[in-house]
Order: sequence, then C-alpha cells, then structure tokens
Amino acid sequence: MALLIRHALVEGAESDILIQGERIARVVPEDSIPLDGSDEIEVIEARGMAAIPSLVNAHAHSAMTLLRGIAEDMDLMPWLNEAIWPREARLTAEDVYWGTRLAAIEMIRAGTTLAADMYFFPEAQAQAARDSGMRFVISFPLIDGLDEARGLAQQKACDEFFKRLPDCGPASIFALAGHSVYATSASSWRYIARFAKEHGLFIHIHLAETETEDRECRAKTGMSPTAYLDSLGVLGPNTFAAHCLWLDARDWDLLAQRGVTAVHNPVSNMKLASGPAFDYEAARRRGVRVLLGTDGAASNNSLNLFSDMKMAGLLQKHHYKDPKRWPVREILAAASRNGHEFFGTGGGRIETDASADLVLIDLARAEMTPCHDLASNLVYANAGAAVDTTICAGRVLMLHGVIEGEKEVREEAARRAQALK
Amino acid sequence: MALLIRHALVEGAESDILIQGERIARVVPEDSIPLDGSDEIEVIEARGMAAIPSLVNAHAHSAMTLLRGIAEDMDLMPWLNEAIWPREARLTAEDVYWGTRLAAIEMIRAGTTLAADMYFFPEAQAQAARDSGMRFVISFPLIDGLDEARGLAQQKACDEFFKRLPDCGPASIFALAGHSVYATSASSWRYIARFAKEHGLFIHIHLAETETEDRECRAKTGMSPTAYLDSLGVLGPNTFAAHCLWLDARDWDLLAQRGVTAVHNPVSNMKLASGPAFDYEAARRRGVRVLLGTDGAASNNSLNLFSDMKMAGLLQKHHYKDPKRWPVREILAAASRNGHEFFGTGGGRIETDASADLVLIDLARAEMTPCHDLASNLVYANAGAAVDTTICAGRVLMLHGVIEGEKEVREEAARRAQALK
Repeated sequence: MALLIRHALVEGAESDILIQGERIARVVPEDSIPLDGSDEIEVIEARGMAAIPSLVNAHAHSAMTLLRGIAEDMDLMPWLNEAIWPREARLTAEDVYWGTRLAAIEMIRAGTTLAADMYFFPEAQAQAARDSGMRFVISFPLIDGLDEARGLAQQKACDEFFKRLPDCGPASIFALAGHSVYATSASSWRYIARFAKEHGLFIHIHLAETETEDRECRAKTGMSPTAYLDSLGVLGPNTFAAHCLWLDARDWDLLAQRGVTAVHNPVSNMKLASGPAFDYEAARRRGVRVLLGTDGAASNNSLNLFSDMKMAGLLQKHHYKDPKRWPVREILAAASRNGHEFFGTGGGRIETDASADLVLIDLARAEMTPCHDLASNLVYANAGAAVDTTICAGRVLMLHGVIEGEKEVREEAARRAQALK
Repeated sequence: MALLIRHALVEGAESDILIQGERIARVVPEDSIPLDGSDEIEVIEARGMAAIPSLVNAHAHSAMTLLRGIAEDMDLMPWLNEAIWPREARLTAEDVYWGTRLAAIEMIRAGTTLAADMYFFPEAQAQAARDSGMRFVISFPLIDGLDEARGLAQQKACDEFFKRLPDCGPASIFALAGHSVYATSASSWRYIARFAKEHGLFIHIHLAETETEDRECRAKTGMSPTAYLDSLGVLGPNTFAAHCLWLDARDWDLLAQRGVTAVHNPVSNMKLASGPAFDYEAARRRGVRVLLGTDGAASNNSLNLFSDMKMAGLLQKHHYKDPKRWPVREILAAASRNGHEFFGTGGGRIETDASADLVLIDLARAEMTPCHDLASNLVYANAGAAVDTTICAGRVLMLHGVIEGEKEVREEAARRAQALK
C-alpha cells in the first residue's frame, strides 16, 4: 500500500509526497498526483504543515522513563547510590520492555524515529522496538565494573545474543555498549573492538563525562580516557561517544582522526553539572560529526529533542559568551540529518528514494506563528508540541496526534513505575 | 454562573473545586457537591488532571511575537540595529494589538494567566488584554533615549494615559516602565518614582542586563546601575527589575533593603549571552523575591514558562557547578505563587477564597508518566503541552485545548508579521 501526503511544505514549496514501502517514491508539486479513488493509497492531508526529516536521539537509556522525577537536586554520587542504582537493581526485563515502550511513545510524539539506546535486557528492548515501530539502536551492554571474570560472562552472553538476534523488524540496528573507562574492563573493551569489527556493529560508549573520570583514568593509565580507549582499539568510524565534555585538543584530534561521532547531551550535562560545556566549535573545526541525545529520563526529564535543541544552542551561547555560536541550521542537522547519515537509515532528506522517516509539523499553532524562518522556529520556538504526524520507514507511528495503543502502554508503565517508588 | 471542576487532583487529593465569580468558593473531596441538574453550574470534568495555580510571566514584550525568529545567531548590537529596531520603528498600534493577542494565546496555552508587559502603544496592549481575558501588567513606557525634552513629552503622555485609563476589565494592573539606565533620563526616572508613588503603581524596569550597562553607568555616575536608580528614588517594594545579572553584593543588599522584586529571564539571557548567570542564591539568602519571565519572543523564542522553568534550573546547576542549586519547588514558586503574591491577584493557591487563576494539567500524557513527583514533572518534564484548561479570574480562557477565536488571531498576526519581514 502507498501513502500520499498532500499539500505539505517541503523546503518552503507546497508539495505532495508519495511513499511506497519504506521509501519516498516522489516529491512533486501539490495536486500533481491524480487520485483515482483507489483505496490502495492512504492519503494524509497536510495543508499548513511542514514535512521535515524525523529526529534521531543518539543517546538514551529509554527504560529510565520509569524513574522520571524520582529524585531531584542531588549530587551525582548520592543520586546514583541512593536514588537510581537501588531501583535499577530491581528492574525486570518486563519493566524494561514497558519503560522502553513508554519512551517510544514520548519520542514518537516529539518527532523522533530512531533512538540509540543503552540499557539492560537488550532482548526486552528489541521486543519494545518491534512493537513500537521505531528504529532503535539496541546496544548490548558490557558493564563489568572492571571485573574481568564478570566481563567474560558478559562477553559470552553477548556472543549468544548476536547468534540468535531477536526479530526487531527492519528498523533496528545493533551496537555493543562499552559503558565507560571506569565501568568496563580492558578485556571487555578489547572484546568490544574485535567483535564489533567482525560483525560490522556500532560501538556505543560514554566518554569523558566527568572530571573524576578524566582524572582517575590519567592517574591509572597515564592516558586520557580518549587515548586509553584508542589504545584498546575502541575508537573508529562506527563508534559514537556520548558526552565528550572533558576533552583536550589532543583528544579532539584523536576523535577526528579515528572518525568517531560525538553525541552531545545538553540537558543531562547541565542538570548533573557534569562539566564545562560541550565544545561544539572544537568538533566543528575538525569535522567531527555531532549528534544530539536526551540521555535518560531520570536526568533530563524528558525525551524531547526539540526542547533539547533549544538547550544546546542556549548553552553554547551562554557558556562561550558569544550569541553567534552554533547556528540554528547546524543544531537542526545534529538532531536529524547527521544521525540519519551516521546510522545509515537512508533518511534525513525529503527526497525521492530517501527512507520515509519524516514528521509533519503543524505550523498553525500560536508558538509556531509567524514562520519567518522554519529552522529557527523548529529549534527555538518549542516546536515539540507541533508534531502532528510521525512516520518511520514508511510506517505511520502517529497520525494527527494519535498513537495506537498508547493508553495501555502508559497505564502499564505507570503501574510498574509506582512499584519502584 | 458557577463553575465546578470535578475529580481534579489538588495537592495529591482528588477534589472538586467550586468557582463562583472570580474566586474559588470551595475545595472539597470529589463528588461531595451534589449536582441537582441546574444549568447554572458549568461542569468541567478533570479526572486524571492536576489543578495547579496558573503561571505568571513577570517580564515580557508580548507584541514581539511578530518578530519571532526574524534573526538568529547575531551579536546583541547588530541584532538590535539591523534586525529588531528598524522593524519596531514600523510597528503600528494595530500591530501591537494583534501581536499581543497572539502572545496571549501562546501564554494561555502554556498555563500563564498574567503577563507583565513592557512595550509601545499601551492603549493597544490594554485593548488586547481585555479581549484576551488574561491579566496583563500594562506598563506605560518612558524611553527617552536620555533626551530630557523627549522625556517631558512622554511624561505628559503618561499623565494623559493615566487620566483616561482604558477599560481593561477587572484583570489589569498598571505600571510605569522605565527602560534602563542607558535609555531613560534622570528626569524621567524622578517622574516615574513620584508618579508611581502618588498613584500606587508598579515600576517595571530593566536592571543590570549587560556588562556594558554596568561599566558605562559606573563611568558616568560613579555608581552601579542599582545604586544610581536608588539615588533617583526608583527602588521600592512596588519595583520589579528584569535581568539583574551584573549585580555585586552591595547591589543585592540594596535590592533586599528596598524590597525590590527580581525577575529572572533565563532563555533570553543565555541566547543573547548577556552575562554570567542570575545569582539565585544571592537573592534567596537575602529574601529578595524572585519571579520568572520569558522576555520577548524575538530573544526566547517562545512564551512558555514551563520550558523556561527547566532552563532556569539547568542554568543554575551548570553555571554554579552544583546539581543541588535551585530546588524544583522554589523554581515552581518563582513561576507561579511568588508572582501572584507580588502582583496581588489573590491567586497562587488552590484554596477557598483564593482567586480562581488556575490550570488543569493532563497527567495522562507520556511525558508526564509516571508522576513520582508532580513538582518535578511540572518543572523538568516538558509539561507545557500538558496544559488542558486555563482559568483566569474565574473565566475559562482555554477549555480542553480550545481557545475561542484563536484562528482569527493567528491569521491576522501572521499577516502583519509577514509585512514586517
């Protein structure tokens, strides 16, 4: 069955978009595709809406939606030790499934069709990915607490997981998640580098998030976290690194040389007071690809990349005392096109043959009026609530604000969250 | 006619709220007010919603919605000289009316029932206030560019304005707006201090927004902007000062001694890279009342205090490198209760005899699920889109997402904005 979006604004021109299967078949001036009354074509009326590529959330811990708002205004270590970790220890695979489904609904509502996840119970995430219809990067976690024996057991489990990859539909992508230099052993890092290379997988890591991480890694290894991971073979063009706050010029050079992709998480970084600020200019000058991520809902507390784009821009301008930093079009690219390119969805463009990963934005909302510049409104005018329709790989996940089965997911997730309180 | 809100959560308890005229007549356990089928009572069903006091936007230039997104990523002076001022010079009273109406719709959607405005054409603002049903603080502007002759003409116009106060309904409040130490002459400041005292008006000012303002004021007067305005009699318990970024300890002491209220505008400050950061702790320690404001939509670019509460918290934690700064309940108070108290609306509480200035928040949304802590969700979980119903002084301005006449306002404002492009 085909899908026809009529009268949408594409790059400022009123257009019709014909979608066949997972792809955009044609983008043509509006009303140039005659409808012959065939019920083989589902029509979405989009007059007054802009069609834009969907957003990509490049670093999330989706099931942490269950812990949204569980504790505020705490220092990092007490927050982890007292609020987060004791509850995570009680999470079941079923909790992770429902927490991920809840996250998917929130992200679909905010125009996101791909989330790079990092959490426990990857099978449950894969099931949630399939049932939500979103693309997920399912990252098998290797978090051995620097305990090599535990690491070996996890490596074995990882082997098994990839032998019997769960059916996630066409939309999913796989990664190995090495947590960080302080939570994953050298042995596991070497395994990650080797296994990812052999199987063409992405490598999803936390890098240089806190000053402590940087200081302790240098004390222990004589190297920065970046140089240390490079010495273990972890850095390469399939590696994407969340945070990247505590980097010096040599670290940035190394990321550029290895083709690593950096993921900025502005809200989480600010809320946890993690560091100075992500140095977008350092990345841009070296051609390091930059993506945006929400991080988990315990430290964000939402999964809405529209508001996080605004935060990313504001943080650069404030921190570097320069209102010219990180122009709107580059922020938008970090939240959308760059991610589609990196993860190879085929999307990120509203063009013939691109993957049909797109969003309709209702311009007839007060906060989107006037529309002197669509990019500016998308980044800075709280455009998240203006997402009307979200389409992932040709499949309509939200139509005019309605997501099928949403209520059941919310209610089950809320019940499970209550039990964790 | 009375209004009965049924089954709403009030401070965690399911309650009915009976509103008579502008006031809350009773807050009682749900279903304890029998409905006798009288059509004198309008019933709003609010099961699954929380009733909270409405928000107060303590510093706005509402009609600047017409310039939303007109120019991004520019230094302050070129932005003002090239993008903003030439367009403002062309604004008519009708433009200000429609821009303010558009702003009111955006604010009502985001749960705001009072905006302290500062802009040209106060008569047009007053008309927009009346037609929108919101409370506005209409601030007559004295911006003479340090030209005393021009100042005298403005003072005369101000006298005339307050002689024939426009009919704004019961909801409006009046202020004199002295723009800033660099745009208002000493003669006009003395007039403001005297006139406001004689007529019991608020004084609405910009204070210590930029480093240049601070440096030039000290060079010219030998005093900080705060001390200079105090020497002219401007600072008192009816004075509210936007920005308050470049203040030293003596300035904060002075604000505390005079009972001045400080208005923090986190988004605008970050976007324009105006300064270090608002020092919430300095205000809190001295008991200086703190409110939140969006500032104008040209530098925000939205009028949504829910997202600005999040920004305010994040900015404190990041800037002061301390995740414990500005706890959620105090952020919420700055955006709501403190403003009701300062402007004397009688609202800010869901209690018998309080003014009926309140908002229903739909908790059955993905981003508000789970609800471990309502305050945390309101501040940090993008709650703006969860506003279902907004009531100001007992009048329903938005019911279940619908604002009467919204479309006409948006379309007329968009037409006028286009002409300014």
